[in-house]
Amino acid sequence: MASAQLTMEAQSEIFLVIKALSDSWNSHDMAAYAAQFTEDANFVNVMGMHWKGRAQIEAAHVQVHRTIFRNSKLKTLDCSLRPLAPGVVLAHVRWEMTGHESPPGVRFSEVRHGVIIGVFVEQDGRWLITAFQNTDIVPMPLPEIKS
Amino acid sequence: MASAQLTMEAQSEIFLVIKALSDSWNSHDMAAYAAQFTEDANFVNVMGMHWKGRAQIEAAHVQVHRTIFRNSKLKTLDCSLRPLAPGVVLAHVRWEMTGHESPPGVRFSEVRHGVIIGVFVEQDGRWLITAFQNTDIVPMPLPEIKS
Repeated sequence: MASAQLTMEAQSEIFLVIKALSDSWNSHDMAAYAAQFTEDANFVNVMGMHWKGRAQIEAAHVQVHRTIFRNSKLKTLDCSLRPLAPGVVLAHVRWEMTGHESPPGVRFSEVRHGVIIGVFVEQDGRWLITAFQNTDIVPMPLPEIKS
Repeated sequence: MASAQLTMEAQSEIFLVIKALSDSWNSHDMAAYAAQFTEDANFVNVMGMHWKGRAQIEAAHVQVHRTIFRNSKLKTLDCSLRPLAPGVVLAHVRWEMTGHESPPGVRFSEVRHGVIIGVFVEQDGRWLITAFQNTDIVPMPLPEIKS
């Protein structure tokens, strides 16, 4: 594996992609959301659904933004980046969501927190997400206090 | 990003790492399990817990293999690989688990299915996992049948 560096420029462009994800989510513009992914991107959502390619990612998101996510607001809490190779950067993004509904058979928390792994690649001078997986952070019950 | 190829040799070595994950899981040998990860690997489990580095990954797994996973059996169902850059390969692994118990406050299905994203890198001639995130596939309720 070649040595990898993360330039200030790459870092700033990747942060803009992450900002574009939440901005487009909050304006329910799923074409803009999907435009942050490569043509051949893999996307695994919190329910383990696996979408393959930008077109599937967009279509799936259009559907949920007509229903359970139509009033949802997404906020990025923090983000860490780690370069893996020239042109490949690993990101972990923690997020918070409010205003959503729950899908059938599942009950989301009123305020959801989660963590995304995103693999970014540089294509034609642009940084795009080529792999994405999202997981809800499950609130653990408090330990029983013994008096 | 440099062009990336997946040689037969790399593919076969990565498949052996994935096999070593389930073999070590089933023999509850968490040192062997953790040895499949790079020193600086990131691991996000199905509950959104984020472990950083091989030592944390091993310690967390030792704990759950003394408790909820002590009788669990893990099976790899299928695996797809996509090269991202020289020395970097993206993997998606679907798995099935039986014989587990559930953590406090959570109820796992009796037979669990899930999907892992794994990012493999080549280090000193060995393929290791440097990022891993795991998600349970949530069984969707069947649509209501109208007669």
